[in-house]
Amino acid sequence: MTDLERELEFSILLDDMKRILRRTKHIGSDTYENDAEHSFHIATMAMVFHSYCKEETDLGHTIKMLLTHDLVEIYAGDTFCYDVEANKDKSLREHEAADKLFGMLPKDKGEMFHNLWLEFEAMETPESKFANTMDRMQPLLNNLKNGGGTWKGNNVSYSSVVKRMEPVAEFSTEIWTNLNEKIRSTFISLGKSLDE
Amino acid sequence: MTDLERELEFSILLDDMKRILRRTKHIGSDTYENDAEHSFHIATMAMVFHSYCKEETDLGHTIKMLLTHDLVEIYAGDTFCYDVEANKDKSLREHEAADKLFGMLPKDKGEMFHNLWLEFEAMETPESKFANTMDRMQPLLNNLKNGGGTWKGNNVSYSSVVKRMEPVAEFSTEIWTNLNEKIRSTFISLGKSLDE
Repeated sequence: MTDLERELEFSILLDDMKRILRRTKHIGSDTYENDAEHSFHIATMAMVFHSYCKEETDLGHTIKMLLTHDLVEIYAGDTFCYDVEANKDKSLREHEAADKLFGMLPKDKGEMFHNLWLEFEAMETPESKFANTMDRMQPLLNNLKNGGGTWKGNNVSYSSVVKRMEPVAEFSTEIWTNLNEKIRSTFISLGKSLDE
Repeated sequence: MTDLERELEFSILLDDMKRILRRTKHIGSDTYENDAEHSFHIATMAMVFHSYCKEETDLGHTIKMLLTHDLVEIYAGDTFCYDVEANKDKSLREHEAADKLFGMLPKDKGEMFHNLWLEFEAMETPESKFANTMDRMQPLLNNLKNGGGTWKGNNVSYSSVVKRMEPVAEFSTEIWTNLNEKIRSTFISLGKSLDE
């Protein structure tokens, strides 16, 4: 197969991202969002919140990482962040998926995607920390606008949400202060404790 | 309203992109794709096809343009590319939408999005030509994999598809030769003439 045919096949496979459902719902709707929608949402949000980065952070590189970060789910599926059991073998499943998926491409392009994915997962570079912040913030906004969203039915505690949002708190005190206030109000309005 | 609140409101509004339906369907499915999915798909394809650019082209800038190019449809709606009537007032509707949408943001950020949208529409810079190529190629791939897709029911001629794909042909002879062959085969298999 020529390089071009491999690239076209990979492009066609990207369509599968539109069918991988997440736990978060569209705002004001009972429709679950999918990986393609989520990736678009956070990549565009990065353009809005780039100015909050405390250190020099390459926006283009961050966006490429965000477009890449969920691609392995084409083969590994989505794992709900608050599901402890399913997260146990998540890493193995995703590494196998990454080899298979990125191996479809010519070597240099496959490595580019693979490295962006690894960088996102490691959460060490400024770009990765910023990208992870967007990845956490967007479902949070949807849950807040949906009166608690996934927190309602899934036995999610306030402390587990705070823990999940640590990258946001580290990224910007201003953003976190604003959002934490809204999370607290939402938990209180749901009659849920803030001490769990 | 603080800048942060305006940015959060804009981020929440981005969710609407998941409800704006296009004419293209997911591959192997009767589900119409939406603007968020389309934007994700073409932005990620840009990472794959960047190497085909003949002149120096900023990939990060191209991707930002692709994430931005359909945002005005949040207020203006999607206009089918082969619908001559609906395209007559498309420009006016979209310019009004751009003022309203990007005006939600702090001035510098609103201008960034507005300029990216204008650059995409003008199709003059290398980044814009590359971005427009991705925007044309992706629905083409979906239509090809769907045995003709939108070409079947909408009275679309071979020559109108070729005209629509001009940016692809100008961008890369190798890609266009490959895809044109597939378009021709598909039209023939549909029993449609190549002379219209």
